[in-house]
Amino acid sequence: MKAWVFQEPGQARWQEVPDPRIKDAGDAVVRVDAVTICGTDLHILKGDVPDVRPGTVLGHEAVGEVVETGTAVTTVRPGDRVLISCICGCGRCRFCREGAYGQCVGGGGWVLGHLIDGTQAEYVRVPFADVSLHPLPASVSSQDAVLLTDIFPTAYEVGVLNGHVRPGDVVAVVGGGPIGLAAIITARLYSPDRIIAIDLAEARLDAAKRLGAEAVANAAEQPERLVHDLTDGLGADVVIEAVGVADSFELCTRIVRPGGHLANVGVHGAPATLHLEDLWSRNVTITTGLVDTYSTPVLLRMMAAGRLPAASSLVTHAFELHDMAEAYDVFGRAADTAALKVVLGGPQHTAVALTG
Amino acid sequence: MKAWVFQEPGQARWQEVPDPRIKDAGDAVVRVDAVTICGTDLHILKGDVPDVRPGTVLGHEAVGEVVETGTAVTTVRPGDRVLISCICGCGRCRFCREGAYGQCVGGGGWVLGHLIDGTQAEYVRVPFADVSLHPLPASVSSQDAVLLTDIFPTAYEVGVLNGHVRPGDVVAVVGGGPIGLAAIITARLYSPDRIIAIDLAEARLDAAKRLGAEAVANAAEQPERLVHDLTDGLGADVVIEAVGVADSFELCTRIVRPGGHLANVGVHGAPATLHLEDLWSRNVTITTGLVDTYSTPVLLRMMAAGRLPAASSLVTHAFELHDMAEAYDVFGRAADTAALKVVLGGPQHTAVALTG
Amino acid sequence: MKAWVFQEPGQARWQEVPDPRIKDAGDAVVRVDAVTICGTDLHILKGDVPDVRPGTVLGHEAVGEVVETGTAVTTVRPGDRVLISCICGCGRCRFCREGAYGQCVGGGGWVLGHLIDGTQAEYVRVPFADVSLHPLPASVSSQDAVLLTDIFPTAYEVGVLNGHVRPGDVVAVVGGGPIGLAAIITARLYSPDRIIAIDLAEARLDAAKRLGAEAVANAAEQPERLVHDLTDGLGADVVIEAVGVADSFELCTRIVRPGGHLANVGVHGAPATLHLEDLWSRNVTITTGLVDTYSTPVLLRMMAAGRLPAASSLVTHAFELHDMAEAYDVFGRAADTAALKVVLGGPQHTAVALTG
Amino acid sequence: MKAWVFQEPGQARWQEVPDPRIKDAGDAVVRVDAVTICGTDLHILKGDVPDVRPGTVLGHEAVGEVVETGTAVTTVRPGDRVLISCICGCGRCRFCREGAYGQCVGGGGWVLGHLIDGTQAEYVRVPFADVSLHPLPASVSSQDAVLLTDIFPTAYEVGVLNGHVRPGDVVAVVGGGPIGLAAIITARLYSPDRIIAIDLAEARLDAAKRLGAEAVANAAEQPERLVHDLTDGLGADVVIEAVGVADSFELCTRIVRPGGHLANVGVHGAPATLHLEDLWSRNVTITTGLVDTYSTPVLLRMMAAGRLPAASSLVTHAFELHDMAEAYDVFGRAADTAALKVVLGGPQHTAVALTG
Repeated sequence: MKAWVFQEPGQARWQEVPDPRIKDAGDAVVRVDAVTICGTDLHILKGDVPDVRPGTVLGHEAVGEVVETGTAVTTVRPGDRVLISCICGCGRCRFCREGAYGQCVGGGGWVLGHLIDGTQAEYVRVPFADVSLHPLPASVSSQDAVLLTDIFPTAYEVGVLNGHVRPGDVVAVVGGGPIGLAAIITARLYSPDRIIAIDLAEARLDAAKRLGAEAVANAAEQPERLVHDLTDGLGADVVIEAVGVADSFELCTRIVRPGGHLANVGVHGAPATLHLEDLWSRNVTITTGLVDTYSTPVLLRMMAAGRLPAASSLVTHAFELHDMAEAYDVFGRAADTAALKVVLGGPQHTAVALTG
Repeated sequence: MKAWVFQEPGQARWQEVPDPRIKDAGDAVVRVDAVTICGTDLHILKGDVPDVRPGTVLGHEAVGEVVETGTAVTTVRPGDRVLISCICGCGRCRFCREGAYGQCVGGGGWVLGHLIDGTQAEYVRVPFADVSLHPLPASVSSQDAVLLTDIFPTAYEVGVLNGHVRPGDVVAVVGGGPIGLAAIITARLYSPDRIIAIDLAEARLDAAKRLGAEAVANAAEQPERLVHDLTDGLGADVVIEAVGVADSFELCTRIVRPGGHLANVGVHGAPATLHLEDLWSRNVTITTGLVDTYSTPVLLRMMAAGRLPAASSLVTHAFELHDMAEAYDVFGRAADTAALKVVLGGPQHTAVALTG
Repeated sequence: MKAWVFQEPGQARWQEVPDPRIKDAGDAVVRVDAVTICGTDLHILKGDVPDVRPGTVLGHEAVGEVVETGTAVTTVRPGDRVLISCICGCGRCRFCREGAYGQCVGGGGWVLGHLIDGTQAEYVRVPFADVSLHPLPASVSSQDAVLLTDIFPTAYEVGVLNGHVRPGDVVAVVGGGPIGLAAIITARLYSPDRIIAIDLAEARLDAAKRLGAEAVANAAEQPERLVHDLTDGLGADVVIEAVGVADSFELCTRIVRPGGHLANVGVHGAPATLHLEDLWSRNVTITTGLVDTYSTPVLLRMMAAGRLPAASSLVTHAFELHDMAEAYDVFGRAADTAALKVVLGGPQHTAVALTG
Repeated sequence: MKAWVFQEPGQARWQEVPDPRIKDAGDAVVRVDAVTICGTDLHILKGDVPDVRPGTVLGHEAVGEVVETGTAVTTVRPGDRVLISCICGCGRCRFCREGAYGQCVGGGGWVLGHLIDGTQAEYVRVPFADVSLHPLPASVSSQDAVLLTDIFPTAYEVGVLNGHVRPGDVVAVVGGGPIGLAAIITARLYSPDRIIAIDLAEARLDAAKRLGAEAVANAAEQPERLVHDLTDGLGADVVIEAVGVADSFELCTRIVRPGGHLANVGVHGAPATLHLEDLWSRNVTITTGLVDTYSTPVLLRMMAAGRLPAASSLVTHAFELHDMAEAYDVFGRAADTAALKVVLGGPQHTAVALTG
């Protein structure tokens, strides 16, 4: 089959590789119908994630059709259309028993496109298929479903649920990329009083507004002041960090109210300064997290019922599966191309820029 | 009356001042029977807390007898023996309505010995007496009760409850001063599997052991290794920071397990480095907090029932009330004097070093 | 002044009574601008609530303007437009300290129109004014605000919050009167997947549909079957009882899923049968509750922000204040008049049937 | 092999049956070392559980040694000493994903000795072995471990955790059989202020006292009065029903305080009357539940650390495995024999009455 293979820092190639096969009794092999590229894939490509060895097929977000299952698999079978969770779960270790699949110590967690071959390929072997695959209802398109493999559960679990968003809250979302926008969409499930979006790019602030942010602030123009003014000087009830740099995190610590929550979703590559001399007395809760994907079934149910209509608008570009190099290029130059999520494959097998 | 009055950085004096009087309908005036000195008082004395104006009577931890009440006070009356909470609560602002008295925006919070005259005096005016005073059962001695005015609710709420200690947990307490020791005592209410105490001073580690820590580590000798070994490399379920310096906080972030809680209790004067490049994916919850004292009634009930027997051993020195200067000296040189808590006044009106 | 005074079972009269005066330092006297009638008032009138002594002014839901305050009141002053909570809170007893004002043992709880004179009058004395009154923003009309004095916090706290409604849930609301409809409106704040309304009256089911129920079932026609079909035989995640009779409660126990919540809001006058032989193994949580009104500030903020637009439609009839007898008659014959909530006073001083 | 086989209501026999074999890839076969009898087994024997077909091997509580595993089993292997949970979990259905194994809809739940052959035999096949078996540390004896297969997780999860026992609480435990006594032992992990045990039998009340109940009341002598007196008329914070009859449940509803929790653990065969006319306004939470055994790993860790020393005293009688008929007789006549738990097999292969 063909797959997108990491060669060395800066280099990946769409090339012929052996077809994946069942190795363990809990495995399934899935034919990939739609797949997307994550910001993490760009980091891997740059060489920032040394765990990924040359020769690895990249990608951890896809939907497809089961073509083969191991002898222990009971909940999916060949022919089933499934969502492949970006996180696999052994289902039996102390973390999986609590739904913390992302912390699995039994061979799961984030392994696809990281420690084992991933989803940017024509076929992929998925371990622990009973826990890691979710049958798709016919009413959910592959293009939409692919958003539920990673960014929606990430934004929802690590941002909205860790942040304890409640009806009537003021929620500040720092970062208007795909994760930040998914946080805005899923925060609205809890009817906050007001969502304030903060980013440097006006295009992203516009997208935030379209998706339900009531107020937006340019990160370069004293966003603290807007939050201050909109909350009578108190600060936001919940602040969601969706950028992954120290400046952004530190801004978050300045705009959260006493007793509030700061939910970090961003992937950080460097430390931040934590101003404990200000924060020690403010009853603040700060959370971090890799997605566990325990919320995927609920999100899927809501999408099937038409309750996440805004999700589709996050897909800005569609490609054929074999146009992986081009898709990486478009996604990698997001500032120029305004790409949010690019989807390869799926029913829309045409390389076009979609309108949001 | 006589009181301990802050003069200027480095200077306080036991001197004659006017007797306090009822100012607001919710006030009470209390005759002080037993009072203690907090680490924060030492900071104020050094000039580290500029909010405290010269002329202020210091102190925020005491028990005594009500001598006068304002017209709106309904739950205590002259003659009642009461615990004076270090935190006053207006009882009506958005924070007080949730029991977050420490964040009161209606005139309460930490005001005694800070923004208004405090408890290191023969008499003290206490605002919002109905919320801020707690009648004392006869079975609780003044010397014990004074421990419930600040350090026990602080250790319990900000350390143990914020940290979500549960039966079977491994709890690491970093810092073996009075707060850290009170955290060990109150963590045991939740039957953790093991408490690991970490400090630089062997005397404090000995005290920690006596009070129930199963393992102790000298902070200078790679405490990470002990935690690692005792948790199969996973880290502690709950880590309580009870020092208030960056090094200690950063140690805490290295020994908490994925999915664990880090409860900061320490009062910090400078920022720490937060290694988000390690922590972002570890599902860690970090909390900060000023005590709210919502737990005081429960702690008082448990003390009255004899369920906090170890508490008394935290009082190492007793003085007469007018020996304030000497008590500050002994408490300020804790490394030499092995002072944990010093109590002035109370039935034991004799200046002696007590055995723990 | 004039007031609606309970005489004896079956008898009340709009008559002259002495003006209320400040009795305690925490009291306020409020001029009533808009007031409504509760189902409970009908019970009192019938003689079902023997605590209510003849001579008592009825009513516990109103908004108005503060005209006088006691010396201890700090958060409202004469001239302020306020919402009078149906529940007063002393703010200092063990229950009030946890926001459980409805269980106040310090002289508050449900006292208005019950143990002391109530709000169906030109003026009313409100005890513990700092906790029991909520200043009204100009953007909220009196007619809307009166809905937040009782039925909205009741439906939200005792139904939606006790029931732990979460995004994606199936919620069944049994009873389509004002409380049931308010439960539908406030359940939607949590984005359930589907709300199923159950009632005997088609008119109420129609109202439920207009307010957001996706499915409705006539209680006489095997509503179990509909719930069964819509949940793959599992049952509803959350069931809210908003009727107050045994049959209705027992229906609720049959349609809640294993692991689900049954939140009883209805006021019951007789026991129900609890089929523990079926329920013991089903991990069901059943809650009861008198409203505490801790949610009033949040609901008020949301109403001010236009986030509870459907609320207004619950007011079906408006009267002048002195038309109390007529208003009771219309409200008491709800089956004929299709009355949901009737409001007396307010800017719309005209006795008309409003369109929903 | 030999096994205890249900023949018909009133009849079971220790007889030769075919050895169990691996059927599914996730199965394990375990050689039984120690096994006990549950009150539920007596019900089955009487014919009260029609799901159990004649020919079924009874029993759902045992420890033993793995002798064979299916191809998908990864966490245990032949030779491992294991605890067999009374509840199996498929690990993949919506309930298992939340740790609610008792409600498993994927083929697990309570199946052993119910829908498939159980543990009262020389060997037993255990489905979903990775989730359903727990490796035993050497420091835990088989006789102790067998208590963790059912009664301890049941008492802890369904009683103590569902009841939200907290430090300082007053906890009433109604029923002093094995489950009630295990509830007393595990409630103490949360340092309640006082545990009140209620039963009809003085011997059981004595046992309750030995295990940590501070007060005991004979159920025939107005236990409401004792609870009333010990709680200033308020009622108990948490009430645990561990009998399973209507009278007992109804007593529980009368002694729980406003805002308190009633956790039903008892297995009921008939309905109870729920006095909603009293309870509707009291903010009471009532929970039911079959054990999920999510707490087994934690309980095992605590037992291994010596933190459940009182557990052993629940085993009153020991037998050889083949003395099953005699053991049923002794256990079935508990009122005469004072049997709490009887253990068959284990190192103590001698039929003796042990001292508690």
